[in-house]
Amino acid sequence: MAKGLPKKRENFSEWYNEVIAQAELAEHSPVKGSMTILPYGFKIWELIQKELDRRLKELGVENAYFPLFIPQSFIKKEKEHLEGFSPELAVVTYAGGKELSEPYIVRPTSETIIYEAYSRWIASYRDLPLMINQWANVVRWELRPRLFLRTTEFLWQEGHTAHATLKEADEFALKILKDVYQRFLEEVLDFSIIAGVKSDSQKFAGAQKTYTAEVITAEGKALQMGTSHNLADNFARVFNITYLDGQGRRNYVFQTSWGVSTRLIGGLIMIHGDDFGLRLPPKIAPFEVVILPISEKEVGFAQKMKEELKSYRVFLDADFVKTLGERIYSWEKKGVPIRLEIGPKEIKANKVLLSQRDKKEKTLLNCSNLNKLIMERLEEFDFSLRKSAKEELRSLIVAVNHWQDFQKVINEGKAAIANWCGNPLCEENIQKLTTATSRCLPFSLEKEILKALDSKKCVYCNKSLEETKPWVFAQAY
Amino acid sequence: MAKGLPKKRENFSEWYNEVIAQAELAEHSPVKGSMTILPYGFKIWELIQKELDRRLKELGVENAYFPLFIPQSFIKKEKEHLEGFSPELAVVTYAGGKELSEPYIVRPTSETIIYEAYSRWIASYRDLPLMINQWANVVRWELRPRLFLRTTEFLWQEGHTAHATLKEADEFALKILKDVYQRFLEEVLDFSIIAGVKSDSQKFAGAQKTYTAEVITAEGKALQMGTSHNLADNFARVFNITYLDGQGRRNYVFQTSWGVSTRLIGGLIMIHGDDFGLRLPPKIAPFEVVILPISEKEVGFAQKMKEELKSYRVFLDADFVKTLGERIYSWEKKGVPIRLEIGPKEIKANKVLLSQRDKKEKTLLNCSNLNKLIMERLEEFDFSLRKSAKEELRSLIVAVNHWQDFQKVINEGKAAIANWCGNPLCEENIQKLTTATSRCLPFSLEKEILKALDSKKCVYCNKSLEETKPWVFAQAY
Repeated sequence: MAKGLPKKRENFSEWYNEVIAQAELAEHSPVKGSMTILPYGFKIWELIQKELDRRLKELGVENAYFPLFIPQSFIKKEKEHLEGFSPELAVVTYAGGKELSEPYIVRPTSETIIYEAYSRWIASYRDLPLMINQWANVVRWELRPRLFLRTTEFLWQEGHTAHATLKEADEFALKILKDVYQRFLEEVLDFSIIAGVKSDSQKFAGAQKTYTAEVITAEGKALQMGTSHNLADNFARVFNITYLDGQGRRNYVFQTSWGVSTRLIGGLIMIHGDDFGLRLPPKIAPFEVVILPISEKEVGFAQKMKEELKSYRVFLDADFVKTLGERIYSWEKKGVPIRLEIGPKEIKANKVLLSQRDKKEKTLLNCSNLNKLIMERLEEFDFSLRKSAKEELRSLIVAVNHWQDFQKVINEGKAAIANWCGNPLCEENIQKLTTATSRCLPFSLEKEILKALDSKKCVYCNKSLEETKPWVFAQAY
Repeated sequence: MAKGLPKKRENFSEWYNEVIAQAELAEHSPVKGSMTILPYGFKIWELIQKELDRRLKELGVENAYFPLFIPQSFIKKEKEHLEGFSPELAVVTYAGGKELSEPYIVRPTSETIIYEAYSRWIASYRDLPLMINQWANVVRWELRPRLFLRTTEFLWQEGHTAHATLKEADEFALKILKDVYQRFLEEVLDFSIIAGVKSDSQKFAGAQKTYTAEVITAEGKALQMGTSHNLADNFARVFNITYLDGQGRRNYVFQTSWGVSTRLIGGLIMIHGDDFGLRLPPKIAPFEVVILPISEKEVGFAQKMKEELKSYRVFLDADFVKTLGERIYSWEKKGVPIRLEIGPKEIKANKVLLSQRDKKEKTLLNCSNLNKLIMERLEEFDFSLRKSAKEELRSLIVAVNHWQDFQKVINEGKAAIANWCGNPLCEENIQKLTTATSRCLPFSLEKEILKALDSKKCVYCNKSLEETKPWVFAQAY
């Protein structure tokens, strides 16, 4: 008998782990902290990759591949970068039967190795902008691993660009965040996103500015889904990446880096999952439709239907060792948007019984116009996921004006939006007292939230500065 | 001024390196023995991946992702496997700020880590066959690195299947070699392949049988392009991978593993390259067509042409800092199948000047039916590459009956086909005296070659055994 799921609102953490196990997305591997991505989980990643890759290429970004190993001396070159990553590094000290004279770091991110190449590749303004991306595995040692959220090894894309001016680099970092990541997260993954700028304490090690797109989960915690960094000329100065401009002057380039990872799948589970398992946005669902013939007798009819629906990703489940109920239950957990059941009655009437993953009731459909009906249902489901994510986000962020309310909101498992003076010490105190950190200064806020923030004072220190701005605070994964 | 290329026949090794550099495929990285794959080279790899992935999925193979690191104890479990890979391993001894209690091996191949999972995933005959593939980076320490051929890190796909019987495993290993790899190599990469079985000394560490698909390069050396291993139950016994059959008996599974790597790109260069650079088979050419307007004035016309040819991968090169000659030269080196030049005369006559990468002469074409003409030219080019690869292979393999001829053929930079008794000692002596090794016992041989092999005696020891069979011998990369 199949195992049930815990309730999402009652035990979020256990529910999350069980959805991953029962939908067969991934598992812990014998290598401490790392995961094996199972075929069903990997299919989701492939669809994410394909769609994101297309969007990046449309901007003129090209893919390349840089080495897994980074000489230790490279990582040491940029001080903040080294400090940011030091505790997480995995080091190869022994290779080919010998101790290495210089240890190699397994890349935690590839800025340093890529920028050594950029220093050789870039000569004049005609080589700019240089826009390269790589799909790769990276390693960051994690003490508290969690499937898809924090694992010692994960898969991601990392983009690295070089530009002639700081302004251009900043605009490009923003373009990636808003036009690629935010749109992808909203249009494809059906998320409702908070996008904005990170505070200095939360930005990337070595960056001047970090832009971020985050979701708030049912626990009220923030989950970073994508970041884009304006690195200014910090790395260019260290790696001596310069170009000759039109007037023959030598200048440092200005750079960006940006990435999203298999963590997106963690976000998908947390945002769209319900007490019955996954609910997958149609654009990245391994199967948009599953066809379930009740018995062997309906398999021929089901095959014809599959053929007719060939413009969709369709799975025909004829595993009759399982009961129809077991099969339905299993595809429900796997989040397939649409199920089509076929029994003898349906065949006789040339009909099919349709279930949509977000609705309890089943509908008997005429088979004559099935392609169009499926399209409409997928669009409806897509829209409904997006709508419920939006409503959920509204309920999870509370505007607060006073420190007591701030603490209460965080303790209740929600995110707070509050004016903050921007002082790092103030931020440190907030974190000490609530474990919440600043997530970002959002690019835009709904009018209602702005209206609710009637105090212009800093929520913690009460300073009433001109620069006090409304920041989102939450616990983070 | 652009640098010329050495002649392929005069200095093959330098020619190979220069083609890679000048076509901007890859470069050596500061990490000893490893390479950076540049955007143009990576585009070729993406097209290879896409086509091969499709063919594997058609067989029901599913993609997954397993960890980069392998506990040292896993590798040590299968004796032959350990011995085969020991000298090539890179070892992580230090991670997260601490010495590891058990070192992790950076995967040289993933049999051991995957089969630990299979031992948990497989319970009954209903779980078989299990057919999983992963696209991954692997690390094998190389003392004499060579771009795309031998690098410390390379990219590949590795497939791993489990079956109920030895016969089924063997058939599947063969199916991958013949129906996937050989067909892919011949139909997509336009290679002429020698496919067959490896001798015991040349087979994969831990396999019962290794099937191989190899090409012979202009140097007369063999380059392994893909291998498929029947692992029998060697790993199943070590990792305790068993299944319950229909009668409730517990049996070991039988396994296969198989892979092709970025080495395919090395093969592409060696087989199809000529004194002017690459010649890329249309199916994996990043651009099938490049459009070259002579000046700014023809750009509008060129853009319209690009739009019209949108079903092809087309690049419009309007980099007028370079002369037309420089641009032509550069795309020739990059192996683009078809170039279309547009000048004022062509626009006036609604024509375009077409060059095909394997022909010296240019043709003036009417633009009215361009899509169809391009298709015909691409097919013609594809066919011509395949034909010339076939003819080249014929000239590079010589059937020999006597030991003196054998030595002479190898010394002349060709491959030999000769009857061999199968004795490993005999094989060792052949290698000592000629540096050539047995490449495979081919599945099939042309009648002319068989006819030329008029002695049934072993070419080295002169034994006249029943089992003497015609093997291919060559130096290997």
